[in-house]
Amino acid sequence: MLHRTYNDQDCSVARALEVVGERWTILILRDAFLGIRRFDDFQRSLGVARNVLQTRLRRLVDEGLLERRRYQERPLRHEYVLTPRGEDLWPVLLALMEWGDHHRTERATAPRALHRGCGGTLTQRCTCTRCEAEIDVGDVELRYDGAGTRAA
Amino acid sequence: MLHRTYNDQDCSVARALEVVGERWTILILRDAFLGIRRFDDFQRSLGVARNVLQTRLRRLVDEGLLERRRYQERPLRHEYVLTPRGEDLWPVLLALMEWGDHHRTERATAPRALHRGCGGTLTQRCTCTRCEAEIDVGDVELRYDGAGTRAA
Repeated sequence: MLHRTYNDQDCSVARALEVVGERWTILILRDAFLGIRRFDDFQRSLGVARNVLQTRLRRLVDEGLLERRRYQERPLRHEYVLTPRGEDLWPVLLALMEWGDHHRTERATAPRALHRGCGGTLTQRCTCTRCEAEIDVGDVELRYDGAGTRAA
Repeated sequence: MLHRTYNDQDCSVARALEVVGERWTILILRDAFLGIRRFDDFQRSLGVARNVLQTRLRRLVDEGLLERRRYQERPLRHEYVLTPRGEDLWPVLLALMEWGDHHRTERATAPRALHRGCGGTLTQRCTCTRCEAEIDVGDVELRYDGAGTRAA
């Protein structure tokens, strides 16, 4: 558990990490993006203990990132499918993928993210919503307004 | 520790998470982006146990994401500064921030990322490096090539 003062900080990075700030969780989401839906397939892909996987999947369902859907009656079986809220984590995965490609391995890497149809590789660019300039880390100003913590 | 098969997967997401797949680590990086450099300031900001902070900072230095610099002789004191490799994690933080803003809080959030000078807010867009189209999650094809795992 994170320290209590932390909940008083109205920080969106911190809040996002309360949901996905754990390695297995992000790898489960990676696999979901790769099309894996069934418990046994996640288990095989990740090599994670079944009880850990169970806990993480339940958490992701509770947080609304995955939906648990019945796909078979006898025996009863469910599969796990990304919700729109889960799909919105796509840029986090892509950013991790780009960093990992660049800094963590010199070999050909998997998974690769491609533009469906065209087959081109993908990249993320940061832009300013006001002047539309392309933004580099040196152009970024991070402001920590205390204001947010007191509102509503 | 992650399961062994995992190291055999040449997955850039997995490799990135080996370095930053832990909540405190990403929050330390967030603070570093906010300009925090000193142990006591990280400790105050995060409310994390000193030994945990020590371990995480050491790991980030060992992995080349932070540089440990002497800033005072008597008593001897060091500060922690982002390296270019650490700065390259900026898109991951921005993606987490955007997701957290959108999904995890209805209040005004901090930190806010702004374009220095212009003051506009920032956003990330995914584009295809071949046809330059703007990419939505539905346009993405993830391919898991086994090839990478056997190379070099």
